[in-house]
Amino acid sequence: MNVVELIERKRDGGALTPDEIVWMIGRYSADDIPDYQMSSMLMAVFKEGLDPEELSAWVDAMLHSGDVLDFSHVAAPKVDKHSTGGVGDKISIPLAPIVAACGVAVPMMSGRGLGHTGGTLDKLESIPGFRTALDPPEFRAILEKTGLVLAGQSETLVPADRRLYALRDATGTVPSIPLISSSIMSKKLAEGLDALVLDVKVGRGAFMKELDDARALAETMVSIGTVRGTAVTALLTDMSQPLGRTIGNANEIAESVDVLRGEGPADVTELTFRLGEQMLVMGGVAPGPAEARAQMERAVESGAAFEKLVEVVVAQGGDPSVLEDTSQLARARNETVVAAPRSGVLARCDALDLGVAALRLGAGREKKEDGIDRGVGIVVPVAVGDTVAQGDPLAILRWAGERRLADAMPLVERAFEIGDEAVEPTPLVYGEVR
Amino acid sequence: MNVVELIERKRDGGALTPDEIVWMIGRYSADDIPDYQMSSMLMAVFKEGLDPEELSAWVDAMLHSGDVLDFSHVAAPKVDKHSTGGVGDKISIPLAPIVAACGVAVPMMSGRGLGHTGGTLDKLESIPGFRTALDPPEFRAILEKTGLVLAGQSETLVPADRRLYALRDATGTVPSIPLISSSIMSKKLAEGLDALVLDVKVGRGAFMKELDDARALAETMVSIGTVRGTAVTALLTDMSQPLGRTIGNANEIAESVDVLRGEGPADVTELTFRLGEQMLVMGGVAPGPAEARAQMERAVESGAAFEKLVEVVVAQGGDPSVLEDTSQLARARNETVVAAPRSGVLARCDALDLGVAALRLGAGREKKEDGIDRGVGIVVPVAVGDTVAQGDPLAILRWAGERRLADAMPLVERAFEIGDEAVEPTPLVYGEVR
Repeated sequence: MNVVELIERKRDGGALTPDEIVWMIGRYSADDIPDYQMSSMLMAVFKEGLDPEELSAWVDAMLHSGDVLDFSHVAAPKVDKHSTGGVGDKISIPLAPIVAACGVAVPMMSGRGLGHTGGTLDKLESIPGFRTALDPPEFRAILEKTGLVLAGQSETLVPADRRLYALRDATGTVPSIPLISSSIMSKKLAEGLDALVLDVKVGRGAFMKELDDARALAETMVSIGTVRGTAVTALLTDMSQPLGRTIGNANEIAESVDVLRGEGPADVTELTFRLGEQMLVMGGVAPGPAEARAQMERAVESGAAFEKLVEVVVAQGGDPSVLEDTSQLARARNETVVAAPRSGVLARCDALDLGVAALRLGAGREKKEDGIDRGVGIVVPVAVGDTVAQGDPLAILRWAGERRLADAMPLVERAFEIGDEAVEPTPLVYGEVR
Repeated sequence: MNVVELIERKRDGGALTPDEIVWMIGRYSADDIPDYQMSSMLMAVFKEGLDPEELSAWVDAMLHSGDVLDFSHVAAPKVDKHSTGGVGDKISIPLAPIVAACGVAVPMMSGRGLGHTGGTLDKLESIPGFRTALDPPEFRAILEKTGLVLAGQSETLVPADRRLYALRDATGTVPSIPLISSSIMSKKLAEGLDALVLDVKVGRGAFMKELDDARALAETMVSIGTVRGTAVTALLTDMSQPLGRTIGNANEIAESVDVLRGEGPADVTELTFRLGEQMLVMGGVAPGPAEARAQMERAVESGAAFEKLVEVVVAQGGDPSVLEDTSQLARARNETVVAAPRSGVLARCDALDLGVAALRLGAGREKKEDGIDRGVGIVVPVAVGDTVAQGDPLAILRWAGERRLADAMPLVERAFEIGDEAVEPTPLVYGEVR
């Protein structure tokens, strides 16, 4: 086979055969195809797409570039949740212990924050001692013991994706539905799951700004699961405003604990349950969403869900005392309040502006190599549709460093819009794809 | 500036500013932008094109990646001819001495053959001792002395094109009108010309298979010249069948000498004069095509044109005795005739098949690094529209090596089609773009 011929065919809108795709990704992984040929192919795929057969072969080739986990000896159904990323999206942290407490095994592999979106691993590492880099035997042992593990992606899973993602990032080929979906799904399918729930975010703070695009991405990912016999459901959820009241790292752990204690903000609690319903039903531990909801509520009320988080934190080397008393978590000393300049109804609370502001405060990273400050962040006590009085706090910035505060402030100020007319609260879930 | 942003903009159909293009090509030339980013950009340009302003900046940036020659101290008008490449296309070899004999200075820089198309340098090097690699002072000295120089592209001219061309070749981004035209025109504009005549080939044996595509390429190249104040005219000429009766290297030199002696095949002679008319008129040494034609015919009849070739061959170290007696040129010992299987009218004489057959005989190179055999080739004594009798020779293969002959033979056999109905001879020139 000749890679130039494959590039030319894709460039001109033709299809590659499964064998050609497997060959190409295998040779790229083996360094036999140089980056400059693969980036040209990626741009051709960006412009021309992949048909279902090509996409399936692409996922297969990625999946088999490394290890594929097998937890078939774990009796409980293995179900994971993946979010396409948002601002204030800490859902994994309360969700995983709740569903694990209900009898679903959750071998969760999460990512780090990049750009304006936060990452579950960064948030979890606000718990002193908590280790997210687990080798495969340890990952397996913790999953077997606690029914739950919260770790980073293993280096041995889908190595082709790490290289391809870095190349896409440098070559303007990131926002392509087949490339995004094959990247996400190859990693999730390598986890040896029985089922997967996707939280596909849509809105200003999400990767997909439009509902149609988010739906197309969701449909593509669901179809990849279907072809491979893994049950996949996607919820299309709002990311026009931040989720919950906190944006940052340590502060999002505290809010997650609130959810596990039944004291969380309504939106985070509701979305956690909505996603959990899918996980329990697909995992076969509840016959329908209502029963699943009831089981999860009991797990929260009984303290079992909170104890499950404590259990996994201990298993992964973390100090559980910060969960018992979240005021012990890291917290930047300085606070600056952005107050409502007038009375009215909150018409906009921009997830992207607030996400970038948190990034500028040091809660996230511009580049993968950057460090982060777990104690900084933003508290947003308001949501679209709320009535506010002049002087009410719209945002509270916790910061370290005047320069960073000055960089973040204009974005926070422009993130809010107050009007005179009543505004409907933003829907939390736009739809479901299965 | 950020190259990823530029790739994204071009990918999405936006335009780059001249500054951005100059920056990007400059940084690429300086190795600050890696191949994998440039190849992604090239694919985006392939798919989205360049608008006239972008194209002009692209040519400018390429042009200024190296030296730009200046022959303003040479009093004669400097005019070159460039062909987009074909089979049996030896036109440069008789054309340059004829127009030089008429008072136009021709600082001709030619290329080597690649794939099924031949290269003027390879043909010229069939003349024993003839050197095509001239350094700038020698190039200039020969031009000043003889009014004609026939050399390879200097390494110092448009180095960005060499890198970009190699990258395009490896990344499926060759057949793009803006990329082809900027590559050709940046090299030609670096030669310090007053005017340029383009021979844009169209048909099976040409890069452009369709007249509309050839016309679009011609128009783009003429517009690049216009923007920069260099007069450019293009002829759209046939490459559905080979030019002349010879395909190869040494045999094409012999045929070129025939033209200079007034004994060449009608098609090569006519196209040489048609292109020469443009060169003489644009160079200001003839008021119109008829006067130009008369001057050129006199230069042939008087022997001045032939003497001009002898003069430049001597100046470049070649042995002129092979021009006086072309039977001394290299010639493979074995001959195999492909005879007409039936009587009738020749309906097809396929330039691509015959070009590839000559390549397989060893007259050309698959890859740049390959060596070539100057004595092998094909003689094609027939043309579309000719009446042939069963057993008449359609092609005579001159070959070395049974294996090569066996590789070439099926292509030669399938290149010809004989029918019963009268067929119009193929036009030589389809049109003119200025």
